[in-house]
Amino acid sequence: MKLLEERILAEGKVSAGDILRVDSFINHRIDVSFSTEMAKEVKRLFSDTEITLVLTVEASGISIATLVAQQLGVPLVFAKKHQTTNLDGALYSEPAWSYTHQKENNIVVSKEYINAGDKVLLVDDFLARGAALSALAKIVEKAGATVAGAAVVIEKEYQGGGNALRAKGYRVEALAKILKLSEDGIVFG
Amino acid sequence: MKLLEERILAEGKVSAGDILRVDSFINHRIDVSFSTEMAKEVKRLFSDTEITLVLTVEASGISIATLVAQQLGVPLVFAKKHQTTNLDGALYSEPAWSYTHQKENNIVVSKEYINAGDKVLLVDDFLARGAALSALAKIVEKAGATVAGAAVVIEKEYQGGGNALRAKGYRVEALAKILKLSEDGIVFG
Repeated sequence: MKLLEERILAEGKVSAGDILRVDSFINHRIDVSFSTEMAKEVKRLFSDTEITLVLTVEASGISIATLVAQQLGVPLVFAKKHQTTNLDGALYSEPAWSYTHQKENNIVVSKEYINAGDKVLLVDDFLARGAALSALAKIVEKAGATVAGAAVVIEKEYQGGGNALRAKGYRVEALAKILKLSEDGIVFG
Repeated sequence: MKLLEERILAEGKVSAGDILRVDSFINHRIDVSFSTEMAKEVKRLFSDTEITLVLTVEASGISIATLVAQQLGVPLVFAKKHQTTNLDGALYSEPAWSYTHQKENNIVVSKEYINAGDKVLLVDDFLARGAALSALAKIVEKAGATVAGAAVVIEKEYQGGGNALRAKGYRVEALAKILKLSEDGIVFG
């Protein structure tokens, strides 16, 4: 998505290592009208695919996932990162290592909200090593539902998570795919 | 909002103490088309008020806050519950006790994203003792911006947080206000 690439170049900040900060419009401040356009693009990309549910994981994926679910006219489920007192009953749980927070999270979804017949689109803001999306895909399959695909705003392709998911047969679409990231610049694919 | 009260009665689960679970449409699975109607109602309630920014705190408020910001045509900022490696630069930080998770969170917003002239609508899914909204209001005022009001989906009025905020002069609107909650039933105000 050309407009997204331009915006990443204009506002993204690359810092030590390979961290890309897009706080100004994606994961702290959110430009909701721009995000709504991104959600429409996700709908267009998956227009040939039946989707009955959008699934994301708290917290920064919730905003774009809400807007994608709105465009698709389906409900959203957001997985929790730890078992809270807010959830009771039977749960699906999968471990996922968070590189951002340097700890293992248990990603948890109530069994009540994924049905065996569901066609589930996984949505997140970032895809790097793919830990969160892999855990979500496992949960979908444990529920006897189908992963219709995964849509992310930004894929850091060089970190391999997206291609590992593709190698497993999942359809993964990124609105911006970054092949190379350094303080000298960003190369999109 | 009558439809919301009906839905709380139909799907809400009251459990030990005074916990109301609305996992099926508000804080785990989200009925996004219903939430969009709730966001329109927030817009209607604040139609006489200038708003330039919506502010919420992760995680479960992000979905409704996104939709309210969409209706109002303004950006959203979601405060983080702890300082992450995702944020750098100068930060506003306020402690807030989470009764749900039984721990103190530091609620953090980058100074970059609230401007002195902003008219800020605080949005959250639940208002009980008001710890999160009070912390957000303090951050807004530290930034030299103005709290235009607070909009929540469900206020547990008997827990006092909403009235404490009103006593301080803030306008607080709840789409459903619960006066009494017990396993025998729910009384709306």
